[in-house]
Amino acid sequence: MEVLAALNLGEIAQTFSKMGMFPVFDVAYYIVSILYLKYEPGSVEVSRRSPVASWLCAMLYCFGSYILADVMLGHSPVDYFQHNSHILLASAVWYLIFYCPLNLFYKCVAFLPVKLVLVALKEVVRTRKIAAGVHHAHHAYHHGFFIMVIVGYVKGSGVALMSNFEQLLRGVWRPETNEILSMSFPTKASLYGAILFTLQEAHILPVAKSTLILGFTLFMATSKVVMTARHSHGSPFALVESWVCHLLFGSPLGGAEEDHHHAPAPASPLKSKEELSEGARKRKTKKAE
Amino acid sequence: MEVLAALNLGEIAQTFSKMGMFPVFDVAYYIVSILYLKYEPGSVEVSRRSPVASWLCAMLYCFGSYILADVMLGHSPVDYFQHNSHILLASAVWYLIFYCPLNLFYKCVAFLPVKLVLVALKEVVRTRKIAAGVHHAHHAYHHGFFIMVIVGYVKGSGVALMSNFEQLLRGVWRPETNEILSMSFPTKASLYGAILFTLQEAHILPVAKSTLILGFTLFMATSKVVMTARHSHGSPFALVESWVCHLLFGSPLGGAEEDHHHAPAPASPLKSKEELSEGARKRKTKKAE
Amino acid sequence: MEVLAALNLGEIAQTFSKMGMFPVFDVAYYIVSILYLKYEPGSVEVSRRSPVASWLCAMLYCFGSYILADVMLGHSPVDYFQHNSHILLASAVWYLIFYCPLNLFYKCVAFLPVKLVLVALKEVVRTRKIAAGVHHAHHAYHHGFFIMVIVGYVKGSGVALMSNFEQLLRGVWRPETNEILSMSFPTKASLYGAILFTLQEAHILPVAKSTLILGFTLFMATSKVVMTARHSHGSPFALVESWVCHLLFGSPLGGAEEDHHHAPAPASPLKSKEELSEGARKRKTKKAE
Repeated sequence: MEVLAALNLGEIAQTFSKMGMFPVFDVAYYIVSILYLKYEPGSVEVSRRSPVASWLCAMLYCFGSYILADVMLGHSPVDYFQHNSHILLASAVWYLIFYCPLNLFYKCVAFLPVKLVLVALKEVVRTRKIAAGVHHAHHAYHHGFFIMVIVGYVKGSGVALMSNFEQLLRGVWRPETNEILSMSFPTKASLYGAILFTLQEAHILPVAKSTLILGFTLFMATSKVVMTARHSHGSPFALVESWVCHLLFGSPLGGAEEDHHHAPAPASPLKSKEELSEGARKRKTKKAE
Repeated sequence: MEVLAALNLGEIAQTFSKMGMFPVFDVAYYIVSILYLKYEPGSVEVSRRSPVASWLCAMLYCFGSYILADVMLGHSPVDYFQHNSHILLASAVWYLIFYCPLNLFYKCVAFLPVKLVLVALKEVVRTRKIAAGVHHAHHAYHHGFFIMVIVGYVKGSGVALMSNFEQLLRGVWRPETNEILSMSFPTKASLYGAILFTLQEAHILPVAKSTLILGFTLFMATSKVVMTARHSHGSPFALVESWVCHLLFGSPLGGAEEDHHHAPAPASPLKSKEELSEGARKRKTKKAE
Repeated sequence: MEVLAALNLGEIAQTFSKMGMFPVFDVAYYIVSILYLKYEPGSVEVSRRSPVASWLCAMLYCFGSYILADVMLGHSPVDYFQHNSHILLASAVWYLIFYCPLNLFYKCVAFLPVKLVLVALKEVVRTRKIAAGVHHAHHAYHHGFFIMVIVGYVKGSGVALMSNFEQLLRGVWRPETNEILSMSFPTKASLYGAILFTLQEAHILPVAKSTLILGFTLFMATSKVVMTARHSHGSPFALVESWVCHLLFGSPLGGAEEDHHHAPAPASPLKSKEELSEGARKRKTKKAE
């Protein structure tokens, strides 16, 4: 901590963790989220056939984390929808991405350099959400460490955790897999982040919350930007996870990555949602152009 | 408004909007709802094999709107089940429709002139529910216009919005479609009604609530009676909707109606729930007789 | 009651109904529940591939009844997870059953004499849960008799009522059946128990609650121990039920038992969850050894 103080990092972290998210960061979050929705196979057809279903899916992509966290804490699931400006902003983004003439808006935000910036901004919001979720749960259940982890986790993962039901809304049903059975990188990172923030809240992790927020944001933003730039899905946790899972749970060595290609040869649809969407992205992008 | 006052319509509207729903209108609502349940393919077999599942489905048909609205506002989903008399009444209707000797009760209420009256009475209850839902949400979230629309919408649509899960209870799973992806007339009308009542609650629509209730009830009752009498599923909104969707969302002209017959030729099960049940109605009625 | 008093049964019942459940009985409940999870086809593979999904399923098996009851009463579904010691205990049991070297723990608790004792202890907890659920609902809704039955029912049945969604978490989807459509013995008994405890709470059943708890526990423990020892699924209610259903609901005589083998010959997957797991048990046990 002394080193951080000397570098003035503590103060930077403080300022960073107090920064308002509303217009800029939130818009980036909405854009990247709805971009991922557009990558989903069939979502463009749904947007033509049933705008209400498409809008609802877009809202789940943007506010799924709030909905899940509210449900987990026993509040109204639509509680967040009282913030009319956020909903209107997200709706505008949805409209521009799906219905903008000549697909202009989509082409701009899907342009790689722009997208990388937006992805980095999205991870800033994600980290904040995890921290806020853990803090909120700590407020409701002072010693409910499991609840803190759960709420932080759903705040970070958002729509991914209810992807089966979000897909159902679009008439797609893939029961063979779900985000918990085969976690993507952001979901895993949200889980680890929620555990870290819970340990911090329980005073087991001797670090200031603002420093943790700054550090975790940097890690998430860097990872996601690199992964997006390289179209990669390899997780930075893979090696450690593979060994820990082998020791603790007797999982075969080599990690989840390889399992995907070996084990489910006949059934095969065990790819995670993001992988599928990335796979479909190129086809979509072509079509959309 | 002056014209209305001159015609004493305002007073009529007042009296109408204060009228109690409990025994007569509610019974009509239960009868028509459970009648639609009996039209569903397989529901008679379920009623023989598992009366508990059948009863539960009947309760969802009768009280689905209360359950959904309670869930949306963060209350107990079974909150409405504290009204023992309503539950007992609905249970009696369920028993009579499914198990009455010689199918006598079913034959009476499914007799077209009787059914038309009951359908009209049901729409009176539906309009009231939408208005009450919007009002209730306004009480909880003063400026939560989206929440008002959502709660009014689920209050009007009821079980239709959870039809996938209601079917699952009977062992049926049709993930290719749902009520949001292909809305039936009552669901659409509930959405528009919820928007109207929200605008009224926000003082944007310069009309008294009682007048709006009277007008919307007349529209709904007339539409549904005509549609039931003609076994039709064409929506009175089709033409306007088709143009608005074409302009705003780039949907192909010709409307959803034709899409149903063209697009999903191979998969085909994109018919809305009510269409399916109407299709099955004739077969059922024959069987039942 | 005088006879009971003479036999000092009333006092025994009092003492019995005040007995703490926490370490011993609860552990037995966790062990038997997670044992049933391990019997489920595919659950061992899931435990290797995704420990998080496996742990979550185990938690649903152990605490499903609390989750459902909390949802029904409008509380936070993870409310029970504030009891860290219970969660840690259940997690330890999960770890031992799924990952213990040489499968030692599993072999011990699945050894029939040990299992019979654990099964009996589990039924003690189940009865207590039903009574507590009814009491809790009575506290919230003084005259909500339907709500009392529902909450007592979900407290007794637990994960069985959400088995479709618990399976979905493991990538399995069997929409053709569910626990309400074809109830297993514990689910049925929980329903009848919830009705009895509700009648007692409404002062219609003239018996002390402690006596009812003692009596119902003895009935449940005896029935389940006998059924487990004989690998049987015949319900002691079958004969009475068959006649009552025939008279009231026109169900074909012969009972559900025979229906299972006759009716769904082509589709066939109408076996109840427990039957399936028992069928798979022997294969699993062999594999595991």
